[in-house]
Amino acid sequence: MTSKKVIEVFYDVVSPYSWLGFEVMCRYRHVWNIELKLRPAFLGGIMQGAGNKPPGLVPNKFMYMMKDLTRSSEYFGVPLQKPSDPFEAMFQKGSLSAMRFVTAVQEREKGGDKQVEQVSRELWRRIWTEDKDITEPASLAEAAMKAGLSDSDIEEALKLYTSKEIKDKLKNATQDALNHGAFGFPMVVCHINGKPEMFFGSDRFELMAHCIGEKWLGPQPNKSAAKL
Amino acid sequence: MTSKKVIEVFYDVVSPYSWLGFEVMCRYRHVWNIELKLRPAFLGGIMQGAGNKPPGLVPNKFMYMMKDLTRSSEYFGVPLQKPSDPFEAMFQKGSLSAMRFVTAVQEREKGGDKQVEQVSRELWRRIWTEDKDITEPASLAEAAMKAGLSDSDIEEALKLYTSKEIKDKLKNATQDALNHGAFGFPMVVCHINGKPEMFFGSDRFELMAHCIGEKWLGPQPNKSAAKL
Repeated sequence: MTSKKVIEVFYDVVSPYSWLGFEVMCRYRHVWNIELKLRPAFLGGIMQGAGNKPPGLVPNKFMYMMKDLTRSSEYFGVPLQKPSDPFEAMFQKGSLSAMRFVTAVQEREKGGDKQVEQVSRELWRRIWTEDKDITEPASLAEAAMKAGLSDSDIEEALKLYTSKEIKDKLKNATQDALNHGAFGFPMVVCHINGKPEMFFGSDRFELMAHCIGEKWLGPQPNKSAAKL
Repeated sequence: MTSKKVIEVFYDVVSPYSWLGFEVMCRYRHVWNIELKLRPAFLGGIMQGAGNKPPGLVPNKFMYMMKDLTRSSEYFGVPLQKPSDPFEAMFQKGSLSAMRFVTAVQEREKGGDKQVEQVSRELWRRIWTEDKDITEPASLAEAAMKAGLSDSDIEEALKLYTSKEIKDKLKNATQDALNHGAFGFPMVVCHINGKPEMFFGSDRFELMAHCIGEKWLGPQPNKSAAKL
């Protein structure tokens, strides 16, 4: 029996490509011989730290992204829908409080990452499917409730997420990503023979599979596997 | 018998990702039911026209690109090697004369695109494998010679490539790409039921195959096919 390869996925719920990458990695944790580590981090801090600009600021790129997301949504089986005002949602409102909340959920969760997985997914669903707010405490609570957290869990997470401890934890995760060379999200880091191999975006899975010696079965491996 | 889908690939030999995309499309022209149209164009004009900045100007992005190109080179079976001074090669020397020369070769070629394919490949090989110049007339002639053009063909192309006719032809191809929404290269435009579908980069082939109803067999389809 070979030991599992550790794979970290750095993401932010403001980023639609992060959602694609996140779902693919969550599906493959049951297909490949890997140990997946969810690494919620802050994309705004990455862009600033790397001196990068959001791709959506170039008009042709923005139009392409929206088209590409529509096509990818169907192909990946992830219900992406453009918010009515993507600029407001992505750049003005942003995701700092949402990612602090996810970090608080992760901090409190013991023995697994089911809660952090589900809460992240419900936040993506709010902003990228339902065109809803993800900045207000009530929004965070609603996402957590849909994710199946108990009332007391939600209450504790809401107390915790503005604490210095959580702010620092999110900063550190963001800095870890920058140290791996991040300039955007999603970023996947595969630890292969003690060496980190970084993959940016949600379009390098085929190459990633090749690098870790696994087989790529498309973004919906269970669907594909059933078809084979 | 269904009619072949027309696919245009817009590229510039200064762009290493264009080389990957170009080779993949040249391989798949014999695998998929498509009619491939090679569209040499000028990346500098695309970046200016779209108001985009080269990705290599963000340091983390540049480092990732170099790493990603090394991995992709092996996976795609395309001999990419970083030039000793990538910034000089890509941004200072650039590709305007090289792309005019390719355009002149295309203008003169009758009954196919073998010459334009081979000359493009030899220019990529010069800049992206052998770290050689692609701006001087002697460099262009050498690439064309390796591509199998006759002395008289080379002489004629060298006369033609600085003409207004060729300059305009390259400008028009670049404008066509911008009209399709380009913001970088490679850009592949698939004409599906009379509607153009644009794909940017060399990492959307799996999705492209899905959209045109063909099967993706990896970047080296003949190798994969042999393995199957």
